[in-house]
Amino acid sequence: MKSDKLVIKLSELDNVAVVPHAKGLQIGTALENGITVQEYVPMGHKVAIKDISRGESITRYGQKIAIANEVIKAGQWVNEHKISLPVPPDLDSLSYEKLPVKKARALNGYTFDGYKNADGSVGTKNLLAISNSVQCVAGLTEYVVKKIKKELLPKYPNVDGVVGLNHSYGCGIAIDAPAAIVPIRTLKNIALNPNFGGHALVIGLGCEKLRPESIVNNASDDTSIFYMQSEANEGFMAIVDDVMKLAEKHLGTLNKRKREPCPASDLVVGMQCGGSDAFSGITANPAAGFAADLIVRAGGSVMFSEVTEVRDAIHLLIPRAADIEVAEALKREMLWYDNYLKLGQADRSANTSPGNKRGGLSTIVEKALGSIIKSGTSPIVDVLAPGEKIRKKGLNFAATPASDFVCGTLQLASGMNMHVFMTGRGTPYGLAEVPVIKVSSNTVLSKRWHDLIDLDAGQIATGEKTIEEMGWELFKMILAVASGKMKVAADKLELHNDLVLFNPGPLT
Amino acid sequence: MKSDKLVIKLSELDNVAVVPHAKGLQIGTALENGITVQEYVPMGHKVAIKDISRGESITRYGQKIAIANEVIKAGQWVNEHKISLPVPPDLDSLSYEKLPVKKARALNGYTFDGYKNADGSVGTKNLLAISNSVQCVAGLTEYVVKKIKKELLPKYPNVDGVVGLNHSYGCGIAIDAPAAIVPIRTLKNIALNPNFGGHALVIGLGCEKLRPESIVNNASDDTSIFYMQSEANEGFMAIVDDVMKLAEKHLGTLNKRKREPCPASDLVVGMQCGGSDAFSGITANPAAGFAADLIVRAGGSVMFSEVTEVRDAIHLLIPRAADIEVAEALKREMLWYDNYLKLGQADRSANTSPGNKRGGLSTIVEKALGSIIKSGTSPIVDVLAPGEKIRKKGLNFAATPASDFVCGTLQLASGMNMHVFMTGRGTPYGLAEVPVIKVSSNTVLSKRWHDLIDLDAGQIATGEKTIEEMGWELFKMILAVASGKMKVAADKLELHNDLVLFNPGPLT
Repeated sequence: MKSDKLVIKLSELDNVAVVPHAKGLQIGTALENGITVQEYVPMGHKVAIKDISRGESITRYGQKIAIANEVIKAGQWVNEHKISLPVPPDLDSLSYEKLPVKKARALNGYTFDGYKNADGSVGTKNLLAISNSVQCVAGLTEYVVKKIKKELLPKYPNVDGVVGLNHSYGCGIAIDAPAAIVPIRTLKNIALNPNFGGHALVIGLGCEKLRPESIVNNASDDTSIFYMQSEANEGFMAIVDDVMKLAEKHLGTLNKRKREPCPASDLVVGMQCGGSDAFSGITANPAAGFAADLIVRAGGSVMFSEVTEVRDAIHLLIPRAADIEVAEALKREMLWYDNYLKLGQADRSANTSPGNKRGGLSTIVEKALGSIIKSGTSPIVDVLAPGEKIRKKGLNFAATPASDFVCGTLQLASGMNMHVFMTGRGTPYGLAEVPVIKVSSNTVLSKRWHDLIDLDAGQIATGEKTIEEMGWELFKMILAVASGKMKVAADKLELHNDLVLFNPGPLT
Repeated sequence: MKSDKLVIKLSELDNVAVVPHAKGLQIGTALENGITVQEYVPMGHKVAIKDISRGESITRYGQKIAIANEVIKAGQWVNEHKISLPVPPDLDSLSYEKLPVKKARALNGYTFDGYKNADGSVGTKNLLAISNSVQCVAGLTEYVVKKIKKELLPKYPNVDGVVGLNHSYGCGIAIDAPAAIVPIRTLKNIALNPNFGGHALVIGLGCEKLRPESIVNNASDDTSIFYMQSEANEGFMAIVDDVMKLAEKHLGTLNKRKREPCPASDLVVGMQCGGSDAFSGITANPAAGFAADLIVRAGGSVMFSEVTEVRDAIHLLIPRAADIEVAEALKREMLWYDNYLKLGQADRSANTSPGNKRGGLSTIVEKALGSIIKSGTSPIVDVLAPGEKIRKKGLNFAATPASDFVCGTLQLASGMNMHVFMTGRGTPYGLAEVPVIKVSSNTVLSKRWHDLIDLDAGQIATGEKTIEEMGWELFKMILAVASGKMKVAADKLELHNDLVLFNPGPLT
């Protein structure tokens, strides 16, 4: 892909190509094979490079992304008004035929400076986390987090920060409904995130449905749970004092920790994209996919997620499953989500946003094909149900909604210690719990948002960098950030999202 | 109800009575009618005052609250292990027979000092509200709210504060699913809350599904919507500067407002209870119900809510409906919720929390009977679907989940300018948007949480105050707080919950 190319075609099978230039494609522009542009096509959008008849497939990435509703001549703009959505791959008829994978060459010698934990995980930050068992104590949690930052944190220089893990679960919920397993295990596993060193503190109220003991297991350790309704405390300030004392104990323990060199195999990188455009699948996601392959070759772990952005490409993922169990688990998660959406009288077409469409992503199929590229080419070794903790090194599919905040929250629960977020339209996404590297799919955005974007993968479209070069750059940036040697944009600005739990169950 | 009473019986029909004393009821204690206590009964719990056979109804408030699973002798403890839940009232067979209501005497001459709005509503605070159309910009919103508080607010002394209305909706959601109407109208109506003076500012991202224009309608007013992705802004600090400029314009307008005497008929009081115990239905809720009647007599509006805490008492509410339409609307909201819970494989029994049960509320029926008492005795003039704006003065049923944060968020959308929150177990609940008066159902809690509770309705159980006296006290406190003359505990401590939207629809 050179900068002088007028359009980008991704496969010889394609009958559309994407416009890379900010100014779009003007009427009358001559393309290859004697095609002349018939109407203006904006940046990121698709131009027909063959005559397409009504009912014919629109092909991008060598895959059917839509069906033409009308005759589209070569040189015309292919937008969402001229096409319709094909049916998604039928899960029942998808059989597992393993793709022959050539053994990837191991990548040795790459390390980062992390915080080693007793459970074998490695933190990229050294944080005091204060979780809670119920939304009712959110105000108290916020109050003490502020007070700890101001009064205690300066005394513990090896602790990188304190984070309050507020959420909207715990009471007023149907705790015995089948779906309750998702938010409960999410809260439990978030408290175990490597960046909290196994020392999360949990504030409970006392009368709530979700018990603090079900979030932190070490019941013997009476410094990790605090009940606000405890009769021992006369008034709010006494309650605050007691939490401060508990926090100080935890800070003392955390302060003894030091960064040590760790192999890249200790990385657990959560990949996500949000505010995507048509470049996401050409620049940022391929670079992320290349970096994902490097991490897997180094023995590390990568998670990709977002069920509705995978559903229409599931036929390409099933053959990459490491074994039949993984293939079945992939189908199981797709089926669960199909049913979940159906219950809410929606389907996967509800995923695509107006911004996606303006950015040139006409259908969820096109979006999904671009989305899965961030998984690279490694075999999928395991499938995590929403909020489950990672069990195997290598490439994992962590099933989550595509909603950015929810996906990030679930990947935190699955144990990520680094987060990579690709965006084309731009979002200020950031997490206090784990560093988030934001990768822009186009140079226009990374120039405009110079203080919000960490890496400009748009250079791939302009021809300044290859996917490989960009992938290596991202890989090395991950190691630098994980080591605390480089600060991401979101952390410099302290732009951090709240957690948003996935609760498919009802409120009461 | 005198302090020297060993047990409290609420109706002549009851076969159980409640223990008011902190020490509970000791074995061997002699009760009336020759009954001797057979086993220890804790405070708030029920003792049988008649012999009850297996399969017989347990009666409290003169209503069936449960069915005995075993023989229960007079003097024995009636707890949740000995009883089971009756079926809820059958909605289809409930016909509307209007209760003869004697016209309540109008209450004149009560006023408060409020901020009059152009739409006829009256604010009890003068706040700059910054809403957003999508969760993605939550970090930006938080950033600017902090900066405005520090740099701008001191220059506008008539503005009481600035609140960020962050939430978890806007993208990654099925915006065309039938249930999407609930969160969307909630966000729209919250921006219209009387305490924001009609001047809420909305931050959008640009590519999200929910458009900022659908939250604030005044499209002609280009100072009320800001798009973060606007190409005019180079970098985050430029974005922040632009929002600060918009905020300053709004602050200038808000600063011109002054409190003026307003009749009590301008009150819109949201009633809610959370962390209830068996006293809630004897002390705090009856006092709130008495105050509710006073507000209605003064021409004002009261909302009560929490569908699952009303469902089992619906047969008592239907006859209070002002007309057949209201009766049908009450049934419609109950039915909607029955179906919603069923879809999630739960039912209304999921409502009761361990704390409720420890506090003596054995079943959801018992809880519901105690809960509806806060509605007082007025006719129900209208039913609001979740997040709908109030249309009629008088007593309204605003259908919401019982989850405290969700109920409060929906009542904000419905237009409350004052909030009264009853609690027995204790919760630090508070809202930045509207003052919250916290009423304790028992003296033990209000003494222990002296800086978190605003009013001790436990004095009714100890015999120091009557329900009437307490109701008047609450009514006058509402007027004082609404006038800005008294600050509630949550505001003194700045303990404020985040909004939690009710989104019965799926995430994508």
